[in-house]
Amino acid sequence: MATRALGPLCVGVDPHPALLPALFGPPGPDAAARWGVAVVERCVGRAVVCKPQAGLFERWGAAGMSALERVCQAATRAGLVVILDAKRGDIGSTAEGYAKGYLGPDSSCPCDAITVNPYMGLDALEPFVAEAERQGKGVCVLARTSNPGSADFQSKRVETAEGAAEPLYLHVARALGPMIERLRGPETGWSGLMLVAGATGPAEARGLREVAREALFLVPGYGEQGGGAREAVAGFVDGPGGREGGVVNASRSVSLPGSAQAANSARDWESAIDQAIETAQRDLLAAVRSRMPQA
Amino acid sequence: MATRALGPLCVGVDPHPALLPALFGPPGPDAAARWGVAVVERCVGRAVVCKPQAGLFERWGAAGMSALERVCQAATRAGLVVILDAKRGDIGSTAEGYAKGYLGPDSSCPCDAITVNPYMGLDALEPFVAEAERQGKGVCVLARTSNPGSADFQSKRVETAEGAAEPLYLHVARALGPMIERLRGPETGWSGLMLVAGATGPAEARGLREVAREALFLVPGYGEQGGGAREAVAGFVDGPGGREGGVVNASRSVSLPGSAQAANSARDWESAIDQAIETAQRDLLAAVRSRMPQA
Repeated sequence: MATRALGPLCVGVDPHPALLPALFGPPGPDAAARWGVAVVERCVGRAVVCKPQAGLFERWGAAGMSALERVCQAATRAGLVVILDAKRGDIGSTAEGYAKGYLGPDSSCPCDAITVNPYMGLDALEPFVAEAERQGKGVCVLARTSNPGSADFQSKRVETAEGAAEPLYLHVARALGPMIERLRGPETGWSGLMLVAGATGPAEARGLREVAREALFLVPGYGEQGGGAREAVAGFVDGPGGREGGVVNASRSVSLPGSAQAANSARDWESAIDQAIETAQRDLLAAVRSRMPQA
Repeated sequence: MATRALGPLCVGVDPHPALLPALFGPPGPDAAARWGVAVVERCVGRAVVCKPQAGLFERWGAAGMSALERVCQAATRAGLVVILDAKRGDIGSTAEGYAKGYLGPDSSCPCDAITVNPYMGLDALEPFVAEAERQGKGVCVLARTSNPGSADFQSKRVETAEGAAEPLYLHVARALGPMIERLRGPETGWSGLMLVAGATGPAEARGLREVAREALFLVPGYGEQGGGAREAVAGFVDGPGGREGGVVNASRSVSLPGSAQAANSARDWESAIDQAIETAQRDLLAAVRSRMPQA
């Protein structure tokens, strides 16, 4: 995997209106598209994966969706792996609509994987998994997110069939077993059925790894939200080139760093972003290359 | 409430590509917009609430979102209450993006309430509730959905603080208490913090009513998915004009009925839709006006 060479960083593309550098024009969908495409270009040769955040584009309605499409198309053309962070979830034909709209071959908003919410149950996830299976793509299910509110419901202990109890997020991951198996890549052994396992919960990530050995993890919460690099890779496992098993997302710290905010020229902005991405990769590579104490 | 006179029907606007009548042109975002606007016009004087399904528009990307905007704008102009079925959910500034994008005063996709997913926790719901509070709008939280998969996680028994156990959907509803209170309308006493309580689970809906007395319910699963009118209003309570406390959604049976599929003229299509809406309202009104046996 190319993440072995460049590092496990996933570059979040989150166009916060108040943080978009003036360089890209007045805050709005056009500035978001120009900025997003520029961020994607900085990723080439520096990061393998990027993650556009649908909600921050969608705030501008159809014009924002059109900006999101431009970014996803540019990232796909650039050869990046695109995880669309849309956190969708619905039943039957609506889920099929989402699945085909994003993972389908004719998507105007092309991506390699999409984040989905498991609350509605396995039948709501099935259309996404089926489309991913057909297209050789991925589905990234929220298990244990990085926000404080993840404790409200995800961490509640639920009764298992065996009369024991385990946190809901583990229960969700366990229920996904057959789907994880279906999306397992024959070469790497890793599954395109990914799990969101926040950097703010390293112990929880290790627990998730025990019940979902082949699922790649998408780890949010590194950097801005307080998780360090070692916490972020807590759910990774030893592999030939160091610890592996997922990607670690950083958004503001790499695509909207303070150093890029003040940039007066495109060139200054580019070097600020390049530096931010490279710094994060170095930090994460150091973490995956050091042997970690076992829990 | 006008639903007392016309009935508690919420008309689902779900543009299934294979079911859009040929009358509106070849299946695609333009046909979806024309059909959706026409459905909305049939609601006037026949139903108070409509519910466009975001996923089925979004499958056409930005063009589909633009079609969704046309439908929501037409419904708002027509004076309908619009519940946008988007099932969004994210944290912090992303949730704010969604909240402002849909519930905000400058929304290009105006709606009176939006459906949201509680899995990520209360802090993920807060931006939606705060925006709804500012704008006098609503937020509709998935509690117990109507699909078979609702049993997978929503119905799992979780441990409560008191050492007892209750299904997750009840636990979610209980945790929403303060938010329900914040969105309570001073006149009606009902709260704009609504709960999704599927028609396929009348006992579950009665349970939800016990822990969330003031929450209006959005009831999916009536008609096509197998719930009857009496099951659909199981979570309603006695009021001056009959049982009240929510709206009951029907989608295919009212906006894509077989009788309208074959229509050769706009006039035939209109009268098929009018009849389908009126039939559903009569069915539901009979249910809310008959005293129901207490569980």
